[in-house]
Amino acid sequence: MQPPGRRLATARRQGEYFMSSPAQSIQTNPQFSAEERAAVYRAIHTRRDVRGQFLPDPVPDEVLARVLTAAHHAPSVGFMQPWDFIVVRAPEVKQKVNQAFRLAHAEAELMFEEGKRATYRKLKLEGILEAPINLCVTCDRRRNGPVVVGRTHIAAMDLYSSVCAVQNLWLAARAEGLGVGWVSIFHQQALRDALGIPREIIPVAYLCIGYVSHFYDRPELEAAGWLPRLALGELLHFDRWQGEADAAGTALLARLDDADPARG
Amino acid sequence: MQPPGRRLATARRQGEYFMSSPAQSIQTNPQFSAEERAAVYRAIHTRRDVRGQFLPDPVPDEVLARVLTAAHHAPSVGFMQPWDFIVVRAPEVKQKVNQAFRLAHAEAELMFEEGKRATYRKLKLEGILEAPINLCVTCDRRRNGPVVVGRTHIAAMDLYSSVCAVQNLWLAARAEGLGVGWVSIFHQQALRDALGIPREIIPVAYLCIGYVSHFYDRPELEAAGWLPRLALGELLHFDRWQGEADAAGTALLARLDDADPARG
Repeated sequence: MQPPGRRLATARRQGEYFMSSPAQSIQTNPQFSAEERAAVYRAIHTRRDVRGQFLPDPVPDEVLARVLTAAHHAPSVGFMQPWDFIVVRAPEVKQKVNQAFRLAHAEAELMFEEGKRATYRKLKLEGILEAPINLCVTCDRRRNGPVVVGRTHIAAMDLYSSVCAVQNLWLAARAEGLGVGWVSIFHQQALRDALGIPREIIPVAYLCIGYVSHFYDRPELEAAGWLPRLALGELLHFDRWQGEADAAGTALLARLDDADPARG
Repeated sequence: MQPPGRRLATARRQGEYFMSSPAQSIQTNPQFSAEERAAVYRAIHTRRDVRGQFLPDPVPDEVLARVLTAAHHAPSVGFMQPWDFIVVRAPEVKQKVNQAFRLAHAEAELMFEEGKRATYRKLKLEGILEAPINLCVTCDRRRNGPVVVGRTHIAAMDLYSSVCAVQNLWLAARAEGLGVGWVSIFHQQALRDALGIPREIIPVAYLCIGYVSHFYDRPELEAAGWLPRLALGELLHFDRWQGEADAAGTALLARLDDADPARG
């Protein structure tokens, strides 16, 4: 790993500008076959947030390299690539992170109404110690200087870029047969302390990664009746927030059931 | 579309709890074939942020239904599914959004150093009017009430869920041969005004979607030399932020080049 200073210097090498580029080469075979397209949808629709099914089997380096590379090829605002990845395998570091989780989890319990509290306490919400790989995906908001193309008006765009990296990794992991669980019940500073992350870096996601005994057919919270999956048609608006479906919108609504793998 | 009140009532139907669920069925064929896995990586590595290559060709309803369904199957914190989707096709609405972009773009120009300013002005940063479909992906932070499993300590988790929906849609769109461009140069309130979005709803992403004449081989900002792609190995940390690679880390670093489609 290069020290952060050298990395930033590399990123700041911006001698050339957008419009002065030579003609850019184009993708020679842009079309996906029906089978390839189906595989992408399969990854999207069979991906799960895994909590309790991790196996101790080691993850081969070439597999981990592929899913990390997938994350690194996420879109980023102004091509700033604000992410870093902390690969955690050391049991003592996992223990520290686990303690940070336990503390926040105990606090979270008290936020739920009394009737739900006992249930919340029993939920399996993470696999920090069981998963062979833990991964913290961060966002360096200062990378490439203060003014970033596309981040001039919505400051969160750099955080969103790091989230895109997480979702790329998640789908790649599913295709590799790896389960991924996103743990978010932490005080951000406690997670920083456990991993030695500087104050100016935002920990965006803490992921548990490993092979699994099985993937569930449906999200656990859906199967348990915690919340139903919302009907997509109820979430669609047309031209404006209060816009009703016109003929084009009605035609689109009529195709939603066919597109749903649980119904189509 | 159901009125928001009815939708929230549906989402709040939480009679059952996580641990009281019946045994959940598991995915019967969890493995991806080598071809399926390659297709997922192909979508990840050939996806582009498209600005200038949109064709006016209509997007069939079944295709739009599939990519929206992919978005709706993103992970969400506590399964809250905080997203809504505004499908924009009306030219007058696109014009309003375009005006909001133009205003912010003119402001952004002034934020760049003088030397870069003229270049920034010439950048093609959106395809609002050219793309047949525009899509605003939002986040309703109040959906399912104030206490959400997994959002007790990091408030942004609901916004991150909506970003995961964007990335799912982007990859599905690539597999369908559709280009997607994320436009982020807006005052959030101006975008709300143009689309009639209530104050409490966060517009997370404004996407231009359509078939394209071609996809570029590399991201435009990379090809133009605006910024280089960072070396993934420089972004990897081991066990702690300041952690050096041990034997396991070194073995992982050695596999990165093989995993990179531009090198492997």
